[in-house]
Amino acid sequence: MKPGKVYLVGAGPGDPGLLTVRGLQLLHSAQVVVYDQLVNPVVLEEVSTVAIRIFVGKQAGRHCIVQEEINRVLVEYARLGYEVVPGVSSAIAVPAYAGIPLTHRKYSSSFAVVTGHEARKAKSTVDWAKLATAVDTLVILMGLHNLSTIVAKLITHGRAPETPAAVIRWGTTQEQETVIGTLADIVEKSVSLKAPALIVVGEVVELRNQLNWFAADAESPEEPWSSGKEDFVNL
Amino acid sequence: MKPGKVYLVGAGPGDPGLLTVRGLQLLHSAQVVVYDQLVNPVVLEEVSTVAIRIFVGKQAGRHCIVQEEINRVLVEYARLGYEVVPGVSSAIAVPAYAGIPLTHRKYSSSFAVVTGHEARKAKSTVDWAKLATAVDTLVILMGLHNLSTIVAKLITHGRAPETPAAVIRWGTTQEQETVIGTLADIVEKSVSLKAPALIVVGEVVELRNQLNWFAADAESPEEPWSSGKEDFVNL
Repeated sequence: MKPGKVYLVGAGPGDPGLLTVRGLQLLHSAQVVVYDQLVNPVVLEEVSTVAIRIFVGKQAGRHCIVQEEINRVLVEYARLGYEVVPGVSSAIAVPAYAGIPLTHRKYSSSFAVVTGHEARKAKSTVDWAKLATAVDTLVILMGLHNLSTIVAKLITHGRAPETPAAVIRWGTTQEQETVIGTLADIVEKSVSLKAPALIVVGEVVELRNQLNWFAADAESPEEPWSSGKEDFVNL
Repeated sequence: MKPGKVYLVGAGPGDPGLLTVRGLQLLHSAQVVVYDQLVNPVVLEEVSTVAIRIFVGKQAGRHCIVQEEINRVLVEYARLGYEVVPGVSSAIAVPAYAGIPLTHRKYSSSFAVVTGHEARKAKSTVDWAKLATAVDTLVILMGLHNLSTIVAKLITHGRAPETPAAVIRWGTTQEQETVIGTLADIVEKSVSLKAPALIVVGEVVELRNQLNWFAADAESPEEPWSSGKEDFVNL
């Protein structure tokens, strides 16, 4: 087998414009592209027509190819060299598209990103008790199914029920949908939303009233820049 | 004045290949580009030759243009509409280029990003006492000058002195430099490093022994993929 090279490319949160320049170059030149169901189909249009495409995501809840087999093939190649091309993180970009900066000199100087996937497990690897009040802004990935459990833990461990919270679905795409509330009512308000969704908890959620700029996300009743605009421009 | 539009573009952590496709398009088409000293000069080569370039960063510690004046001009434009183009975050990409993933199914399911800028202030906005043990991985930005203070706070508040730690300078560029140690010795080991640098604290730092792939960063004595490689490939 001729020596190859494996690139692990972050494809971004959804908007094809958020793919990196290097990621796009590699899609154009790759001989084999392995991808899952979270990649925007528009991004795949950049793959060379002569390249082999291997889908390894889930369809109707089932893995199409055994993960171990894919790992084996990639590892085989990777022994020959690999490179990491980080992408724009959904944890930061999805809130940004919803008009929510994770940090702000007046509201937040720290944020944490955690998985909400295992929040209901007795032996959760996430320390919700400490996290509740350790940072100004919390970003919870894969947490929609466990939202009521997560919210209860945060309040029990000292986060105020009136803390602003947001649930964002299909962030950065034309289907982006955002629900805004507080820890006290976000579970009820977001009951109709389906996964995948990202959850943001913290005072910065309130900035959406001023900063919501993404036309696809029509929830906000206020005009952007209607107030407080001087606070925003900050190079 | 003809109506314009302001784009707030994240230029990425340094490697020009990590600029987004959308960011590059905007650099090509913008009539005015406002930038600071943290932008890689190679990125600025993409700006149209007929565009106006305004440098608003610091030179020898002094701001070249008064921030309020720049804010005023941008706000004037921004009343007419603006758009946010998030970039690849240095908080995630710089560790990745040093062979350190912030999360890993075996080592870490949470990370926090905090500013280390104000760690010595009596009224720090960061709660170091809680942060010390609230998350698996800590990423500290702008913290090099306060490293000894930060390390002392983390240890005092329960983080083990043997916790692996890394200091990374000029991450993602050909000048990338990484120092590896533990909370007990990282201050001493990194004493010759100058700002700007990023600090990572947590067990994931150990993965660098297996995952260090970036040729510019020559510190690692081990061959990539020399052991444990099956843990890494994970789509």
